[in-house]
Amino acid sequence: MENKTNRAYEVVIEAIKKKIKNGEIKKGEKLRPEREIAEDLGVSRASVREAIRALDVIGLIESRQGAGNYIKETFEESLIQPLSVMFLLEQNDFTEINEFRFILESQAAVLAAERIDEKDIKKLEELIDEMSKTSDEEKNVEIDRQLHYIIDNASKNRVISSILAVISELIDESIKGTRSELARKDAQNSKKLLEIHKELVDAMKNKSKKRAYEAMQRHREIIEI
Amino acid sequence: MENKTNRAYEVVIEAIKKKIKNGEIKKGEKLRPEREIAEDLGVSRASVREAIRALDVIGLIESRQGAGNYIKETFEESLIQPLSVMFLLEQNDFTEINEFRFILESQAAVLAAERIDEKDIKKLEELIDEMSKTSDEEKNVEIDRQLHYIIDNASKNRVISSILAVISELIDESIKGTRSELARKDAQNSKKLLEIHKELVDAMKNKSKKRAYEAMQRHREIIEI
Repeated sequence: MENKTNRAYEVVIEAIKKKIKNGEIKKGEKLRPEREIAEDLGVSRASVREAIRALDVIGLIESRQGAGNYIKETFEESLIQPLSVMFLLEQNDFTEINEFRFILESQAAVLAAERIDEKDIKKLEELIDEMSKTSDEEKNVEIDRQLHYIIDNASKNRVISSILAVISELIDESIKGTRSELARKDAQNSKKLLEIHKELVDAMKNKSKKRAYEAMQRHREIIEI
Repeated sequence: MENKTNRAYEVVIEAIKKKIKNGEIKKGEKLRPEREIAEDLGVSRASVREAIRALDVIGLIESRQGAGNYIKETFEESLIQPLSVMFLLEQNDFTEINEFRFILESQAAVLAAERIDEKDIKKLEELIDEMSKTSDEEKNVEIDRQLHYIIDNASKNRVISSILAVISELIDESIKGTRSELARKDAQNSKKLLEIHKELVDAMKNKSKKRAYEAMQRHREIIEI
């Protein structure tokens, strides 16, 4: 790390972060022109551009062509690149990522049991109804995903729901694989997953943190068979 | 997002990520020279450099001056920038970040209760011993941090311990503030924190997930008074 701190583009990044920290620039606001930033910091315009690109990639800045650079309003996207990098680098060993995901998803369900509103409960009940009527595994995968998405968001914690959304987007293919595989191996598994999801939704309806947590544990057990 | 996908530096990033995904480039390996990448993809060298910078900032690549660009061996650093961005943007509302952190830290303790080894238990006991002998709050803050660091790592889940390390680094100042404030408000709080940490370490010794979890709940309650 030592020799990195002197690089021009890093000086620019730190300067911008400092301005945000001090409240000099706020969410949604426009940065000064690249030329002015370069003059102020005594670096080249190319270095300023490199810094802006990097901040664009990590989701701090939105660089609108022809219109300048703006500080983002939300942070969800800032997690997508690094998490995707992590998954790419660790693709041979998903154990830790899966454990992390499962822990977050269980805790999201526990928070959701307290915080979910009637509208979302109604949507969950409709999904359970659909799930119990179909034996099409492709369709079940999609219902499954929607159901967990609603519960994750009902946690009302955007850090948790954003991370779960990113993980889901990045490893959806493998989830699909798991679910189809389970159903192929044993038709009973599909029925068990339906029961577990019913119990999970019922826990939401009854605002039972304990039952929500237990349903998620059973969910994990069946997936890991 | 629409008009972003056509940008030259994003084409380069996607091309590199694809090569990692396909296994054509692996951890620790060197990328081809920037000039060759530019020729292959039909983009300018400046675009390749911008992409490399961005991947350096998000921790996928280590750009060694004069020696070329290498794929990183570990992913811990890739979370630091986006999480720090998140914290900067959300600095007025730490509620969700604190909730996320507390959930992860509790679950890390639960995992650690099962996975911790004798060497770490010994270190924890020494820290508790130190904590019970000092009334210096500055020193207690440091012991407190070391203790949780050992437990977080004993979870043996590097995704979880990396995220906790990043959060801790980024908001250490505020933790220090909280602990000193608690001690100032009521000398009893310092004693209560000692008791809770003793219980936590005792739970580790007895490999009790339940007691580890409960100690963390009490820990949160006292911090949130």
